[in-house]
Amino acid sequence: MSLDPHPWAEQLDSLLAHAWQRLTRGVHDRHAPARHPTLATVSAEGWPQARTVVLRAASRSDGVLEIHTHAHSPKIADLSARPVAALHVWDPGSHLQIRIQADVEIAQGDLVASRWSAVPERSRAAYSRGPLPGQSISEALAYETDPDPAAFAVLQLHVRSMDLLHLGPQHRRALFSRDNAWAGCWLVP
Amino acid sequence: MSLDPHPWAEQLDSLLAHAWQRLTRGVHDRHAPARHPTLATVSAEGWPQARTVVLRAASRSDGVLEIHTHAHSPKIADLSARPVAALHVWDPGSHLQIRIQADVEIAQGDLVASRWSAVPERSRAAYSRGPLPGQSISEALAYETDPDPAAFAVLQLHVRSMDLLHLGPQHRRALFSRDNAWAGCWLVP
Repeated sequence: MSLDPHPWAEQLDSLLAHAWQRLTRGVHDRHAPARHPTLATVSAEGWPQARTVVLRAASRSDGVLEIHTHAHSPKIADLSARPVAALHVWDPGSHLQIRIQADVEIAQGDLVASRWSAVPERSRAAYSRGPLPGQSISEALAYETDPDPAAFAVLQLHVRSMDLLHLGPQHRRALFSRDNAWAGCWLVP
Repeated sequence: MSLDPHPWAEQLDSLLAHAWQRLTRGVHDRHAPARHPTLATVSAEGWPQARTVVLRAASRSDGVLEIHTHAHSPKIADLSARPVAALHVWDPGSHLQIRIQADVEIAQGDLVASRWSAVPERSRAAYSRGPLPGQSISEALAYETDPDPAAFAVLQLHVRSMDLLHLGPQHRRALFSRDNAWAGCWLVP
């Protein structure tokens, strides 16, 4: 019998499986913590940038996560210069921090046409022509929402490594890397 | 009468005041969303790094936020090379994203002795001698917790800018910078 309510945290394989399960739940359940991870990139000037994103797809077999974004947003500029990102989730129910390092591929246009057609009408305003996200405007609401498929981009995060920290009666932390076939090793928390 | 339940988001000054109020609440209320922001840094190799931290102090008049960390953690290595950070909070109750860019000063030893003495006994294990956070270990629990004041460091985040995004019936976004005496301007969300 385990005293920890989270016995999955005690073994490397079950810890990794649980993290992917929580990520996958984020894709399908808009109230799950992994629905809204924080994506960190590095700007051309070398500044870290962090913002909330919506997790749109997660494939454990490919080690790939997907995020949609405006094709002319500052994060696209960051990623064009340095195609690497960190993705961060704090999952309170699991007492689990998920830290992902990933190489990022930007897909647009015909490549993502099928994904664009699956974006609900009400969500398309986020991908509009006209003044770009982050541009200065004179009044708070002086912006247009006129959906444009050319403003839609998909970020494919090819996971390099996953650093999992479980805060239980005793803390456990492990690192899993693609290079090491996701075998995993324990780290000092 | 405002139709938005968050009328503070409609004016630049009340929006900024609300963000500082939520940050300050994070310092004093362990259940507040700003208690656990995500801190992003850039590693020496140019990778973004993001992890949960605990907000320990917030001073609007100084434009300074404080975080405690292990003095030999990887984030200290990142910040020694590039003393800049992003701090990110998603506050669900306020429908507010707070994105902070800051210059970071690392304080240790005698400078932070008074803060060390205020760290509760049970929290001191996070600042231990012995194997360092992030080091590889053979077993999950093969690490020591032996508090050491020399392993305690304080990060002082001198806020350069604050990017606030309110998701209401109509989205509003504004940027406030120290350089501009925190006057603020609206941005395309």
